[in-house]
Amino acid sequence: MKTILLLGAGKSSNVLLDYLETNASNYDWQISVGDIDLDSLKSKIADKPHFKGFLLNLDDSENTKSYIQKADIVISMLPAILHISIAKYCVEFSKNLITPSYISDEMMALSEEVKFKGLIFMNELGLDPGIDHMSAMEIFDRLRAEGAEIKSFKSYCGGLVAKECDDNPWNYKFSWNPRNVILAGQGKGGIKYQENNHLKYIPYYNLFKRVEPVVMSGIGTYEGYPNRDSLKYKLVYGLNQIETMLRGTIREKGYCKGWDIVVEMGLTDDTYIVENVKGKTYNDFFEMFMPRDTLNMMGGMTDNLLEKFFFLGFDDHESLIEKDGSPAAILQSIMEKKMGLKPGDRDLILMQHQIEYTKENKRYKIISDLVLEGKDETDTAMASTVGLPIGIMCKMILEGIFKTPGVQYPIAKEVYEPMLEELVGFGVVFKEQVEVVK
Amino acid sequence: MKTILLLGAGKSSNVLLDYLETNASNYDWQISVGDIDLDSLKSKIADKPHFKGFLLNLDDSENTKSYIQKADIVISMLPAILHISIAKYCVEFSKNLITPSYISDEMMALSEEVKFKGLIFMNELGLDPGIDHMSAMEIFDRLRAEGAEIKSFKSYCGGLVAKECDDNPWNYKFSWNPRNVILAGQGKGGIKYQENNHLKYIPYYNLFKRVEPVVMSGIGTYEGYPNRDSLKYKLVYGLNQIETMLRGTIREKGYCKGWDIVVEMGLTDDTYIVENVKGKTYNDFFEMFMPRDTLNMMGGMTDNLLEKFFFLGFDDHESLIEKDGSPAAILQSIMEKKMGLKPGDRDLILMQHQIEYTKENKRYKIISDLVLEGKDETDTAMASTVGLPIGIMCKMILEGIFKTPGVQYPIAKEVYEPMLEELVGFGVVFKEQVEVVK
Repeated sequence: MKTILLLGAGKSSNVLLDYLETNASNYDWQISVGDIDLDSLKSKIADKPHFKGFLLNLDDSENTKSYIQKADIVISMLPAILHISIAKYCVEFSKNLITPSYISDEMMALSEEVKFKGLIFMNELGLDPGIDHMSAMEIFDRLRAEGAEIKSFKSYCGGLVAKECDDNPWNYKFSWNPRNVILAGQGKGGIKYQENNHLKYIPYYNLFKRVEPVVMSGIGTYEGYPNRDSLKYKLVYGLNQIETMLRGTIREKGYCKGWDIVVEMGLTDDTYIVENVKGKTYNDFFEMFMPRDTLNMMGGMTDNLLEKFFFLGFDDHESLIEKDGSPAAILQSIMEKKMGLKPGDRDLILMQHQIEYTKENKRYKIISDLVLEGKDETDTAMASTVGLPIGIMCKMILEGIFKTPGVQYPIAKEVYEPMLEELVGFGVVFKEQVEVVK
Repeated sequence: MKTILLLGAGKSSNVLLDYLETNASNYDWQISVGDIDLDSLKSKIADKPHFKGFLLNLDDSENTKSYIQKADIVISMLPAILHISIAKYCVEFSKNLITPSYISDEMMALSEEVKFKGLIFMNELGLDPGIDHMSAMEIFDRLRAEGAEIKSFKSYCGGLVAKECDDNPWNYKFSWNPRNVILAGQGKGGIKYQENNHLKYIPYYNLFKRVEPVVMSGIGTYEGYPNRDSLKYKLVYGLNQIETMLRGTIREKGYCKGWDIVVEMGLTDDTYIVENVKGKTYNDFFEMFMPRDTLNMMGGMTDNLLEKFFFLGFDDHESLIEKDGSPAAILQSIMEKKMGLKPGDRDLILMQHQIEYTKENKRYKIISDLVLEGKDETDTAMASTVGLPIGIMCKMILEGIFKTPGVQYPIAKEVYEPMLEELVGFGVVFKEQVEVVK
């Protein structure tokens, strides 16, 4: 019998729980799962006989360590900032570790020790980062094997809402951490990407103005804005000689124009607390950020744009702000009330790689699309694409299918090949088109 | 004989040095002055028999302390961040202190101790903050004595260049710290002010769009943008019940429109280092920040605006960036080469208070203007308006004219009355107009 320790059973763990339960008998797994909300956890695992739940108290490091000591492998679905302390315990007790999150510098710093102990610390194993790495590497490796040279890589991904469940003027609902949506693009340093061998910087406050159309064949035209650092995977992907590299986020058409105004007003600022806003109306709050020429600003808006702002409550003189916070935190509390998935709502995942390459003096472009809808508001496409790669990786490590030690990304052929194959069974299917570039 | 210890003898100390020398015989002063640049200091005090210069080494605290111990009063013209350590020594050795800078929280925290020891720590004693405090308080106190109620206070100040010496398309030259000009408006938290009893926030990146005309009677129309925190002097000035309060910066017409584009491009970001920019051309640097639709952007510009950017070197394929740095640091290095005061250039200080008040059921508006030109590129109006209040305050304390202890702003009548009176002799004259507000 193998023991899997799962830390954190929030929204994005739903599908992972199902996957582990489904495979538990077959592979003789016992899953120990800890969360800070024991009641919610109990209801989630009530129908899962291979699970044992416990109250996770990270302040009690001895308790946390005792669970890690007893496990064969640890999966951390905790907030990204907490992975490192878990990782250090995993080094101490020689346990393998899986996380869906970006590799932090601190995590990478454990690399030598992890290799020395023969451990696997697999990270960035969700949708984006995760499925994007694997599906892109599959294409890169295939093209390179054919003698092609990769010239341009643009990759976009977005978590949206299915057309039939889209009933708000932003054409968006939260299928993952709302805070990350509000703060998208923020952080120290500019947003950078590479275009025709030129490094390009964009300041945060212009990000939502610098949008490119993303055409999803047979589905529609969306818009994409660049992620913060498109360049950090140049080396990881082996694309040192590439001319253009951009990773971006997909939104419905019109979203970025609306969000740009939200940003321009200063509503996404998370660096200070708004004075005396608790108990004021939504309108009072928004008024604080309205420019003097609000009427002009509003007058210049299309109906579609105006609708977005009335939907948020720009003219709501009744609803009250419930607690003090930064502009971003208050905006988030308002948006969460209006833009959560409702019962029966299905989310929608879109991903597109645009890869240009040369082969035998001709230039080609591959467009590879992923379209995946969720089943309902709990069994979301987001929870699938984050949870399934984690579950499959867990199986691959426990079964000895993947053995390479180190702190790593899922970019090796021995990872992505079996992974992408199993994911097809869950509807994660990329459709590829190739065209000649004139 | 009284000993004055002056720490720091940079650009803004020039007029102060002259003032102290001129008064030294009369009042029996000896001035000990320390600077990190001993050669430059020596040349500055060569013709000043009452001065003794020394090499200031702040790392050697024993040395610094020994000078403070021997002084009757200490003037710190060091960078603002260094005042606090000097202030602590002044508490230790019971010495009075004068600085031109904003009172930091750490400085204010010394208040009780300073009062207990009967010391005077006078701060914010330059142009802005400084002369603005004093000239505004003089009007407030006068109006309040007449039974008026102050309803609105807008105050603008700017360091510009005299019309005859204005030979660049930005209509601006550096008469004080260039870094502060580049980073103007940045910092944690939004920019806030109050308008008709409503608190208003502006995000940094919209600051230079929210400009108001500032009409200087007989001189011309300028533009003003709000400073970061207009509200922190509400209590200090006793304006708790005021409806509108805004403190701002004056620039020549058109400057803000140009600077807004500089900000929009991300050129004022000081949070990261631009990659591999040393040795590249000015054009290479600017290109990194150009949006994809640069030609459109440029196409939409007036000639006047275009000229500003060509002046900065947007199309300069020859001049090279000399060292790596943040976008803001590189922009500063470029602008310093092009926008410094040339030999013979005279700077120009403008200040305007707009005060609305009610008296006997009528509403009035006072407009109070200060216009002051420098003599040349060293004897600047900026150095006068920063140095003279410091010098005069020093005299007032040494002569026992001002005795109130504490960490303080120059807002008491016993400070501003003699100070403004003496400043008139140096051309610091406010012209006042009153009109009835309909």
